[in-house]
Amino acid sequence: MSDVKQAIAQPPPDRMRIDFQTEPARYRHWKLKIDGEVATLLMDVDEKSGLFEGYDLKLNSYDLGVDIELADAIERLRFEHPQARVLVLRSAKPRVFSAGANIRMLAGASHAHKVNFCKFTNETRNGIEDLSENSGLKSICAINGTAAGGGYELALATDYILLVDDGAASVSLPELPLLAVLPGTGGLTRVSDKRKVRRDYADVFCTTEEGVKGKRAAEWRLVDDVVPGSKFDQAVEAQARQFASQSRRAASDAGVKLTPLPRSFNANGVEYGALSVEFQRGERIATVAVRGPSAPPPATAQEMIALGAGFWPLQLARELDDAILHIRFNELDVAAIVFKSSGETDQVLAYDRFLDANKDHWLAREIRLFWKRVLKRIDLTSRSLVSLIEPGSCFAGTLAELPFASDRSYMLIGRRDGDNKPPATLALGDANFGPYPMSNGLTRLASRFLANPADLEAAEAQRGKSIDAETAQRLGLVTFALDDIDWDDEVRVFLEERASFSPDALTGLEANLRFAGPETMESKIFARLTAWQNWIFQRPNAIGEEGALKRYGTGQKPVFDTRRV
Amino acid sequence: MSDVKQAIAQPPPDRMRIDFQTEPARYRHWKLKIDGEVATLLMDVDEKSGLFEGYDLKLNSYDLGVDIELADAIERLRFEHPQARVLVLRSAKPRVFSAGANIRMLAGASHAHKVNFCKFTNETRNGIEDLSENSGLKSICAINGTAAGGGYELALATDYILLVDDGAASVSLPELPLLAVLPGTGGLTRVSDKRKVRRDYADVFCTTEEGVKGKRAAEWRLVDDVVPGSKFDQAVEAQARQFASQSRRAASDAGVKLTPLPRSFNANGVEYGALSVEFQRGERIATVAVRGPSAPPPATAQEMIALGAGFWPLQLARELDDAILHIRFNELDVAAIVFKSSGETDQVLAYDRFLDANKDHWLAREIRLFWKRVLKRIDLTSRSLVSLIEPGSCFAGTLAELPFASDRSYMLIGRRDGDNKPPATLALGDANFGPYPMSNGLTRLASRFLANPADLEAAEAQRGKSIDAETAQRLGLVTFALDDIDWDDEVRVFLEERASFSPDALTGLEANLRFAGPETMESKIFARLTAWQNWIFQRPNAIGEEGALKRYGTGQKPVFDTRRV
Repeated sequence: MSDVKQAIAQPPPDRMRIDFQTEPARYRHWKLKIDGEVATLLMDVDEKSGLFEGYDLKLNSYDLGVDIELADAIERLRFEHPQARVLVLRSAKPRVFSAGANIRMLAGASHAHKVNFCKFTNETRNGIEDLSENSGLKSICAINGTAAGGGYELALATDYILLVDDGAASVSLPELPLLAVLPGTGGLTRVSDKRKVRRDYADVFCTTEEGVKGKRAAEWRLVDDVVPGSKFDQAVEAQARQFASQSRRAASDAGVKLTPLPRSFNANGVEYGALSVEFQRGERIATVAVRGPSAPPPATAQEMIALGAGFWPLQLARELDDAILHIRFNELDVAAIVFKSSGETDQVLAYDRFLDANKDHWLAREIRLFWKRVLKRIDLTSRSLVSLIEPGSCFAGTLAELPFASDRSYMLIGRRDGDNKPPATLALGDANFGPYPMSNGLTRLASRFLANPADLEAAEAQRGKSIDAETAQRLGLVTFALDDIDWDDEVRVFLEERASFSPDALTGLEANLRFAGPETMESKIFARLTAWQNWIFQRPNAIGEEGALKRYGTGQKPVFDTRRV
Repeated sequence: MSDVKQAIAQPPPDRMRIDFQTEPARYRHWKLKIDGEVATLLMDVDEKSGLFEGYDLKLNSYDLGVDIELADAIERLRFEHPQARVLVLRSAKPRVFSAGANIRMLAGASHAHKVNFCKFTNETRNGIEDLSENSGLKSICAINGTAAGGGYELALATDYILLVDDGAASVSLPELPLLAVLPGTGGLTRVSDKRKVRRDYADVFCTTEEGVKGKRAAEWRLVDDVVPGSKFDQAVEAQARQFASQSRRAASDAGVKLTPLPRSFNANGVEYGALSVEFQRGERIATVAVRGPSAPPPATAQEMIALGAGFWPLQLARELDDAILHIRFNELDVAAIVFKSSGETDQVLAYDRFLDANKDHWLAREIRLFWKRVLKRIDLTSRSLVSLIEPGSCFAGTLAELPFASDRSYMLIGRRDGDNKPPATLALGDANFGPYPMSNGLTRLASRFLANPADLEAAEAQRGKSIDAETAQRLGLVTFALDDIDWDDEVRVFLEERASFSPDALTGLEANLRFAGPETMESKIFARLTAWQNWIFQRPNAIGEEGALKRYGTGQKPVFDTRRV
């Protein structure tokens, strides 16, 4: 068990790096089958192919490796299979849907890995819900046996849950009675807020190790339908046909292949096609430098399809997503992510206008939705985020969301001494006023200007214009506008200060300040539930030597500190 | 320091019991002055009168004892001074408003005490906001010097913050840079959601030890006005006059004296006038048995005033509040609070009707508001809550909120063998459909029936009727209806099971399941912020031997685990 712990706790050497890139040919745990309008994701976890040593993935239990494949499959469904109109999740194993997150993996993992693992699995499930809400692919979960913990939480992310009625198949959230932790993937929030299970039934359900089966599962709203085994496949198929017939997804072409990312790792960073990551490990800084497009946008949607994964907005979104995940999981010591950009603001805005003009085209829509999810992933990344807006940068439209997602932004006034690059400008476009809501349901600018809607209107009035540093500061679009004399010192002092603070306290501070205003189911999952879960994951009653997570499977009962806090 | 720790960590013997009852004549830290319409609360903390040993309350820093007096003063303002129309908070000390929660107290306190302390101080500040919103007493905070951490958070609870502009006076939230924890009393949420400070300015503010002063404090929305010292008193007075003139509070009588509660402690419980608390310490159960009124309600509001603190609804609310606080702070091992009742349901409903009929009378309104706060305090109590509805009980109207606030309720069908008490009934009244919203802004029944508004309507249609156990179960008003044969075993097994689970996991579970639906600023404070804060309060970066809270004031810098989680 200590091997697992060590493997997960330490920043990994190359061979240990957690890689989020995969493709169907390399899947070990899932099969993505497309049959006309119906896409089926078949869960068939290879128990010997865990991401780390020290545990077997029995009974379709999962670890991060299983979820990386699931996330990849969902993306491919969006981009490579635009003709699919419904998604069915099933198990390939008899009498078990999924036993949830692997307990021995959790017991051996570091606190940081547990927290990052839960965040990623949450993002994947939110992606399934987004697929339904915004891409016309409703989803069905066909539960043929045990769906426990994370297994049931996966079902909760779908639109319709069918449970076989065979006297044994059940749904359960046994985390509390078995392991002294909470369901880690939004289970409590989806039970109370999505399925609206009555609070006392939810209490019974979440404290009953064996869960609920048969008719009661439907009566308590835990599943949508309970069907005898003999009619199960038929019921799943009928529901799939119904969802497919209601879908507004209507692409006729073959989709765009998500080819492997151009990517090379070196000692101090990662080089992608449209961005670079550079680590200053002594300073605990990762600089993410995005590059604007090198050519104007194509003239037609067909040309966009022909460009495929090389189409600049799609390429950059995929690379940025990968870079952020790499930093989250593999570079735990990074305190601050610094966003920089280089390129032509006009070019960036031209691509935004192209996507706007084609917003009813399935591919343009999927690219926008991808950007929305990547930007949310950034909002939810527990590192200090800062944007440096310097001469030669191209923070415009979609890319301007990076400073708006940042905890602070610094913009340089005028030129740098000895540098002939023109002064930095910022530019706004339609992309900043709608398509990329945060998890609180508001755009980043609407969250920013919550105090005074007139400030938002003043920003909107600047759409399409080049905004210099002093104007940007006056409009409230950047935190500080600094001239060349002050720039280096101010930025250095800020980054040093950030690295000197308690990492935990910064995580809590940023999680609270980034999301002013309304709450949504999604923000409740990430704020309320995640925070409680982090707390519990850290308490001796769960992770101490006598705690439930450590003692699970040993035959010894856990010993608890009985004080209620 | 270890003395403090021990004193707070252990369930206290009698002499150590934390007592929430006080009165102005016994205040050591505050002076409540009434000058016509203007009430002034003067903070003048006696540094040698800390609640525990081991620290001095310098610079108007506070501990729980200081906050108990503040909470008491606010209640007296409501009941004893109905002619007051505005509240001014000031410091009696020169050049300092308040240094916030005492750091040495926090460093020495157990995790449980820190969490309970923050929850209580939050409830007190929410009470100040309720005073403004619902009782017509707007509040002003006059900051004459340093307002740091909890000092500024107290100001944030008021409606209008004036800061003296003397080049030194400042507001700050230095918790993160100084102590590696978060502001514990709603500070982050009020900065982002009440005052709507722009997120990047909030980031700068919360990471700047010395805070913000002068004009910038107003520009960043941290205070409402900045006034030179020579004009400060005048500005405070003008604002107080303005708020008083807008107040709709218009009572002409002298108020109702909050006389000392009839209360006696014994080895196994506490006996009050209208309720008893009994501890079964081996089983980790506290039974709170409330007694219905022994006489019909008075005929007129004047008679209600004459009854004063002895008026049954007021008496019971005060006693219930005290009992819950006693269990929270002094009986940490209690896993479950069991609510029982005895009395006539008709009598309880008659009192509710009396309060309804007099709802525009200041005293009836204050009693309703008191019940609202007590019920919220119950919702937010981190113990499993269960109601047992048995023959002879009187869970009707206001008292029916206890089962609706419970995680589960059990109701006995028919009579008990060998007992001639009539079968238990439940009764609903207007009290269940409006006056007592939870912190999510919904009534308990609306939260309960979130899935289907028709269920809420079906319950409403039963208003005033006696509802038997089977009907109550059918209507969804109770979790389980059981007959006499099953009752004892079912209830015993449930309570044993509850005591066997991890206390921390139960806290997290209940905090998530009790509050389905919308979020408000208040629910964000208690859920999102509190949970993060609990987590951070538990992390070695704060409380470890090398953590910031332990090292504060030693001259040694804290050492942090640099991994971001």
